[in-house]
Amino acid sequence: MSEPGSFRAYLEAARVAVDGELDRLLPAAGEPPARLHEAMRYGLFVGGKRLRPALCLLAGELYGGDREQLLPGAAALEMIHTFSLIHDDLPALDDDDLRRGRPTVHRRYDEATALLVGDGLLTLALTTLVSEPPAMAAERRLRATRVVGRAVGTAGMIGGQMADLEAERSWPKAARAALESIHRHKTGALIVASVRIGGIYAGAGEEADRLLTTLAERLGLMFQIRDDILDVEGSDETLGKTAGKDARAHKLTYPALLGVDESRQLLGRIADEAGELAAGLPGDGGVVGSLIRFVATRDR
Amino acid sequence: MSEPGSFRAYLEAARVAVDGELDRLLPAAGEPPARLHEAMRYGLFVGGKRLRPALCLLAGELYGGDREQLLPGAAALEMIHTFSLIHDDLPALDDDDLRRGRPTVHRRYDEATALLVGDGLLTLALTTLVSEPPAMAAERRLRATRVVGRAVGTAGMIGGQMADLEAERSWPKAARAALESIHRHKTGALIVASVRIGGIYAGAGEEADRLLTTLAERLGLMFQIRDDILDVEGSDETLGKTAGKDARAHKLTYPALLGVDESRQLLGRIADEAGELAAGLPGDGGVVGSLIRFVATRDR
Repeated sequence: MSEPGSFRAYLEAARVAVDGELDRLLPAAGEPPARLHEAMRYGLFVGGKRLRPALCLLAGELYGGDREQLLPGAAALEMIHTFSLIHDDLPALDDDDLRRGRPTVHRRYDEATALLVGDGLLTLALTTLVSEPPAMAAERRLRATRVVGRAVGTAGMIGGQMADLEAERSWPKAARAALESIHRHKTGALIVASVRIGGIYAGAGEEADRLLTTLAERLGLMFQIRDDILDVEGSDETLGKTAGKDARAHKLTYPALLGVDESRQLLGRIADEAGELAAGLPGDGGVVGSLIRFVATRDR
Repeated sequence: MSEPGSFRAYLEAARVAVDGELDRLLPAAGEPPARLHEAMRYGLFVGGKRLRPALCLLAGELYGGDREQLLPGAAALEMIHTFSLIHDDLPALDDDDLRRGRPTVHRRYDEATALLVGDGLLTLALTTLVSEPPAMAAERRLRATRVVGRAVGTAGMIGGQMADLEAERSWPKAARAALESIHRHKTGALIVASVRIGGIYAGAGEEADRLLTTLAERLGLMFQIRDDILDVEGSDETLGKTAGKDARAHKLTYPALLGVDESRQLLGRIADEAGELAAGLPGDGGVVGSLIRFVATRDR
């Protein structure tokens, strides 16, 4: 249902390619331990937009990278995103029953399996970044793995998850700066890494890396603000996950801090900044402009 | 209290060097999110023999590697071992209160923190293997990371943990072959990787890699049989963890399958095989001979 040249069309095509790559990289469902490998596939293939892999492919292709060369790294990013969702959904953390419209891994299987599925996906992702594609220069693979590894670690996504837990405990002491810091780490770091490794795989230089980083930081922040707004305004059915959880958990969110209207205005201003930055990219900017609108207006 | 030239003396000296390297590589305890970084240090520095790092250093030094160059990889192995202990101790898995004589991470902090500490240590370990030492050829770092990543993943340690869970459900259907397979993956894979990456860092060739692999497989199996015997014969105090847990949990172990006496005899036969293999190593074999005796007779 998407216009050619739109980001939605790009995303749909990317999803098919990324799902094929994930299928190639994952151990077969029947390979022992079969329950673990089956649960890994369940967690990965219950849906999902494949936004992070698409951002990696888009950035890489803008700088002349070849899709086949970009795909293993793009798939690894989705493994990492899925690992973080599966661990975050566990009873010890967010205790969520529903994800992408279906039972979470620990509900469908059990907690022990969900824990090991997450560990396994994280390990497979980093091993894939190191090993694939074999024909790419070792230095480039090392750099991509390092960028992703730091984005995932305690100075990135995992640290953001912890800061989020601590803010729940101490809110409303935490203010706007804390909120931005949490999101920059929890959601932003992996989105920035997704965009950056596209450029790295394509052999783009330092200046391109800085531009992609700055632009991706805006995208990550927009993504999170939109996510917070959707939690207020969406339903379980459109979201495929439990709506209204943030407010019930007294989570520190943009709507909680600024109200929905002001959150929308902030989102608009950041989208404008992103649009200005995108003008510096190679190509005519059609898909990137569409991407910015997509992130600002998506309904799931 | 160890003789110079004994493996115990080697292990003591290695522990000091590895602990210094871990301190250098870990984020400072006060760095935000402070609770997470503090808990990572708690998990790592509550004790532990540092056996895996010592095996890496020993294999590397036998083949002429420089200790400074070997240390980051050795420290990364201990991070991975500790990650696996922290996740295995969680209520969803082994539900252990005591580790290395002190409260487990989820008992001292909470489950959410323990989960994220494990994720953080795994990520930091793989990122360290990719990045350090910066002066080492990229190809060699890539190869070491790949070897460790596979040893950790679902075809290695994580897969072994899952197989162990499933065996608990289906025992006594599972037999000797299943037991060996579980241990080869759950404990053996990381021990084999520890020994192998020492050789890889030192630039040892394919033949050395095969010899180190075969020898380390024996060491891993011996380590596990001894662990099973200690669980029957040791006390909480000497072990620093809960003794007798295996039998209470109806775990598939060597003493449960063969009895303690036959387990001891098996351990002795494998130690003899290891001794024969060790004759092919460079050097006079003094420390390696002592290592084999250490693994066969250790009391914690």
